[in-house]
Amino acid sequence: MAEVNTTDKDAENVIRIMVATDNHLGYGEKDALRGDDSFIAFEEILQMAVDEDVDMILLGGDLFHDAVPSQNAMHKCIELLRRYTFGGKPVSLEILSDQSASFHNTINQSVNYEDPNLNIGIPVFSIHGNHDDPSGFGRLSSLDLLSTMGLVNYFGRWTDLTKVEISPVLIRKGESKMALYGLSHIHDARLARLFKDYQVIINGPNETDDEWFHLMVIHQNRADRGPKNYIPEEALPSFLHLVIWGHEHDCRIDPESNVLRDFYVSQPGSSVATSLSEGEAKKKHVGILEIYKTKFNLTPLPLQTVRPFIFDSVIIADWADRLNLSEGDASTKVYNFAKERVETMIERARELITGHPKQPTEPLIRLRLIYSEESHMFNTIRFSQMFVTRVANPADVVKFERLNKRMKSDKISVDKEAMQRAMEVDNTTRVEQLVDNYFEEAKAKNPLKLMHSKALAEMTYRLVEHRDTNSADNIFKYYNERAVDHLMETLPDDENIEDELAKFRLRFSADDILKALDASNRNRSATTSAIGTTPKEENGGDLTESSSRGGARGRG
Amino acid sequence: MAEVNTTDKDAENVIRIMVATDNHLGYGEKDALRGDDSFIAFEEILQMAVDEDVDMILLGGDLFHDAVPSQNAMHKCIELLRRYTFGGKPVSLEILSDQSASFHNTINQSVNYEDPNLNIGIPVFSIHGNHDDPSGFGRLSSLDLLSTMGLVNYFGRWTDLTKVEISPVLIRKGESKMALYGLSHIHDARLARLFKDYQVIINGPNETDDEWFHLMVIHQNRADRGPKNYIPEEALPSFLHLVIWGHEHDCRIDPESNVLRDFYVSQPGSSVATSLSEGEAKKKHVGILEIYKTKFNLTPLPLQTVRPFIFDSVIIADWADRLNLSEGDASTKVYNFAKERVETMIERARELITGHPKQPTEPLIRLRLIYSEESHMFNTIRFSQMFVTRVANPADVVKFERLNKRMKSDKISVDKEAMQRAMEVDNTTRVEQLVDNYFEEAKAKNPLKLMHSKALAEMTYRLVEHRDTNSADNIFKYYNERAVDHLMETLPDDENIEDELAKFRLRFSADDILKALDASNRNRSATTSAIGTTPKEENGGDLTESSSRGGARGRG
Repeated sequence: MAEVNTTDKDAENVIRIMVATDNHLGYGEKDALRGDDSFIAFEEILQMAVDEDVDMILLGGDLFHDAVPSQNAMHKCIELLRRYTFGGKPVSLEILSDQSASFHNTINQSVNYEDPNLNIGIPVFSIHGNHDDPSGFGRLSSLDLLSTMGLVNYFGRWTDLTKVEISPVLIRKGESKMALYGLSHIHDARLARLFKDYQVIINGPNETDDEWFHLMVIHQNRADRGPKNYIPEEALPSFLHLVIWGHEHDCRIDPESNVLRDFYVSQPGSSVATSLSEGEAKKKHVGILEIYKTKFNLTPLPLQTVRPFIFDSVIIADWADRLNLSEGDASTKVYNFAKERVETMIERARELITGHPKQPTEPLIRLRLIYSEESHMFNTIRFSQMFVTRVANPADVVKFERLNKRMKSDKISVDKEAMQRAMEVDNTTRVEQLVDNYFEEAKAKNPLKLMHSKALAEMTYRLVEHRDTNSADNIFKYYNERAVDHLMETLPDDENIEDELAKFRLRFSADDILKALDASNRNRSATTSAIGTTPKEENGGDLTESSSRGGARGRG
Repeated sequence: MAEVNTTDKDAENVIRIMVATDNHLGYGEKDALRGDDSFIAFEEILQMAVDEDVDMILLGGDLFHDAVPSQNAMHKCIELLRRYTFGGKPVSLEILSDQSASFHNTINQSVNYEDPNLNIGIPVFSIHGNHDDPSGFGRLSSLDLLSTMGLVNYFGRWTDLTKVEISPVLIRKGESKMALYGLSHIHDARLARLFKDYQVIINGPNETDDEWFHLMVIHQNRADRGPKNYIPEEALPSFLHLVIWGHEHDCRIDPESNVLRDFYVSQPGSSVATSLSEGEAKKKHVGILEIYKTKFNLTPLPLQTVRPFIFDSVIIADWADRLNLSEGDASTKVYNFAKERVETMIERARELITGHPKQPTEPLIRLRLIYSEESHMFNTIRFSQMFVTRVANPADVVKFERLNKRMKSDKISVDKEAMQRAMEVDNTTRVEQLVDNYFEEAKAKNPLKLMHSKALAEMTYRLVEHRDTNSADNIFKYYNERAVDHLMETLPDDENIEDELAKFRLRFSADDILKALDASNRNRSATTSAIGTTPKEENGGDLTESSSRGGARGRG
C-alpha cells in the first residue's frame, strides 16, 4: 500500500477519516451490567474523532442493533451525536457530486454541514447494515431519522433491488480527491446473484483522471459461508484503492491486500461483542484513515472502553489422560478443571483493563468445553453461580458443545439473517439441515434432553389410551418446527445454537404441544369431544415443507 | 378579558403565540385513506405559525398518538419541525428563568434557540400529554428525543409524583413579561389527590410585581367524569390569567371565564379526530394568543385541512310513528331511513370542504342509531358497503346503540387511561361495572351476541357429558375477563365500546376458551387425561378480584 509520507501530511491536503463499524447501539441495553457497553464504546469513538481532529467519521453499518431502536437507544445516540459532532470547527471537505442524489432523506438535500440551520463540526457518513436496514411501516431505516435530523449523512442506499447502481460521493480537500462508494446491506444471496448477473454497476467519477482515491464501504458477509452466502472480494472492481468492510465482527482492521484486484480491504470489526464467540474476543479497534491523493495510511486505534472478554475452547478428550477421566467421577474432574480454567481466564481478563475511567471491568468469560462423553458434563448453572459477582455473563460462562462432524470439518455457520429473510432466499436449507441433524443425533442418544418429560408422558398416554399412532410423529414434528421458529426468533450465533435449544427446551412445556394438538383436533370435532385422533395433515404443517425456504448466511 | 388594543400591538412588545394541542401524530397512520390526516393538520398549524409570524408555538400535550411513535410518525414529525421551525428569523423572546431547570433533556441546558449549533426560527414549547408520556425502557417521552435533537422545548415535566412543584418559565419580550407554567399529564386521580393534599405547589416569579402575565398549560380531564376523575378549574390558582387546557378533544378555544378564580380557560381541542364522537365533529381550531403586559387576545383560526366529519344521532323510538315501524318490516324501514340520513350527511360534509389543496375530502360520517327494539336493527356491514367509495370510514358509518339507563342519565365515560394505569388507581371500579352491566343486560336478552356459538356448544357438551357444573361459570368468567382485557388494550371511546365488544366477539373463538380451560385441567392431570373437571379456583382468577383496581377517566 502506498503510504502517506509525513511530508504529505499537510493538514490542508490530507483527508483524515475516523473509520468504525457495527456499533450495535442498544445491544443488550436491558442488561443491568452490560446495558451501556454499546453506548460507552460509541462515545469513546466519537471522543477519539474529536481528539484526532478528523475531517469526517465513516461508519460501515449496524449503528443500531435493532431495526426499530428503543427510545432509549435512539435517545442516547442522538445525544452522543449532538454532543460530539456539532460545533464550531469548520469542515473542510467540499462535496463535488450532486448532493441531492447522494444523501437519503435530508431536509435540504445537502450534506449536513452545508445545512444553514445546523452547525456541524465533524460530519458522520454512514451506510445502513442488516440490523438498521429499512423496515416496518414506512420502510424507514433509523438512519433516515438521523439524516432528517441532520445528525448523519446517510448514503449508499439502494432504491432498486433488481439493479444496483452506485455513484460515488465526490469529496475534495485541497489536493486530495476521494470518490466514496457506499453500498448499504443487501441480503448476500441477492447481492451475489446481482453480481453474477452483472446487475451491480459501480460508476466512477465523470472526471476519470487518476488522481481520485476510490474508497468503498460495504456491509456484507466477507467470510465464505457457502456459495452465494458471502460476497467475494473479487466481485468488487479493481479501480478501488480500499474497501472498508462492515458486518464482520472480528477486528481485521489492518488493510489486507487482495492481489487479484489490487486493492486493500480493512475490516474494522464491531465495537461491542454481540455474541460470546472467538471472533468477538479479539482486541477491538477503530482506525484513522489518512488519504493523500491516491496514497493512504490506516492507523488502528485500540478501543479502551471495551469490556474485557476472554474466550477459551477445550476439547475434553484431549485432556482425558491428564485428568484421568476414565476412572472415578469424571464429571467432577472436568468441573474442577473448568473451574481452574475459568479462574485463569478471569486473571487474564484483568490484563485487558485499560485504566480508562469509563471501561466496564467485570469481564465476559466464555469457556467452550467440547465433549464426546456425556459423563464428562456437569451442571453449568450450578457452576456459573460461583462467578456471579465476578463476571458480566454469569449465566453462560461455560458452554458444552458436542464434538461432532461439523467441528472436525469446516465450520458451518448458523445463518441468522437468512432465517429472518427466509422469504427472499431460494437456494439453501442449511439451517433446517443443521437443526435436523442436531435432532437426529440427539434423539437417538438422549431423547429426554430434547423434550420436556411431561410431553413424553403425554405422548405415551396418547399412544396407549387413544391408539393415536400419529401422536409421536406429530409431537416431534411440532416440536421441531417450534425449535426452528425459536432459533429464527433468537438468531443465535453458531457458538450459541445449543444454548438456545436448551433454553427453548426448558420453556417449551407439554402444554404447548398439547394445545397445538388439541386445537387441530377441535377444528374437526369441536362440539363433540376435545380429544380425538390427531390427523396428521392437520397438525401444523410439515417441517420439510414449511422450512424449505430457509437459507444460510452469517454474522451480526 | 382585558383585550390587547390595536395600539398595544407593537411588534416589539406583544408576545404572539400559536396555541395548539392534541395533534396525535401517527393516529391511524396505517389507514390507507386517513393515514396522513394527523400530519397534514400539524403541517397546516406549522405553516400558519410561519405565516402569522409568531414568536413561539405552545403545544398542550399529545403531540404523538403513541407513547412509542412508529419510525414513520417520528420521522414525519422531525421533518415537519425541521422544515417549519428552523431558519434565520430572529427569536425575540428572552428567557429570564433558569433554563437548565426549565427544559428537560436538552444538550446545552438551554432553550433550543440559544443552542449555538442550531438555527431556530420559531421555538416550540410543549408539555407531554397522556399519549406521549414517559414510558417503556428508560422512561423516556418522545418529547425527550425531540428535546435532545433541539426540535422542541420540553417543559413542565414533573419529577416527583408525591409532590408537584411548578416553577414558571419566565419570558420577556419588550414591555411584556410572561410566566409560563407547565404541568405535563399526571393521572387525574393522582393529581386530584395531590391537589386535595396541598401537594401541588405553583410558584410565582420571584419578582412579584403585577406586570407578569401568568399563563398555564395543562393536559387533564376538564369535564366532570366523577370525583377525582377530572381536575376542577378551581383547583388552579387565581393569580393565573389564562389556562390552555389540553387533552379534551372538542374545540372550545374561545376563552371561558371562570368567575370563582378570575381567570380564563381556553380549550383548543385536537387537530385530528381520534374517535367518531360528537365532540370530535366540532369545527377544529388553533389560536393566536397575543399578550401585552397583563392583557391578552386569543384569535381562533379554523383549520382548513381537517377532514370533514359529520356526526348525527337519532333515537329510533322518536321516529317510530313517522316511519310506521309497528307495521311490516321495521328493519328495512330503518335501513332506508338511515340510508337517506347518511346521504344528507354526506351532502352536509361537502360544505366542510375548504378548498385547501391538502385537505382530504372523503368525509368521516357517523350516524348513531339509538334503538330499543332489536327488530329495528339491520346489518350494518351490508349497509356500509353502499358508501365504500364515498366516505373515509366505510366500516363504521352507522352504529347502533341501545337506549338504556346510562344514555338517559348523565353520560358515563369509559375510562381509557384508567384502564391502562389500573395499577395506579385505588378508588373506582367504573369500567368493570360498565362491562358487568353490559354483560348482565346482554346476557339476559341475547346470549348469542355475547359469545361465539361454538363456545356455547362446547359448554353444553361439557355440562352434559362431563357433568362439569363449573364450565358455564368458568367460561363466562374467562370470557368476561378477556373482554375487559380487550377493552383495556383497545381503549375504545365511550361511543365505541359496543363496537369493540362486537369485534372482540368475532375474534374470540370457542378454541380460545377451551384452550384456557384445558390448560388449567392439564396442570392437574397432565399425564393421565387432557380433560377432567375444571376446578373453579384454577380458572384464571376471578373478575371481581382481578379488576378491583380499575378506575375511570376519559378522553384521548
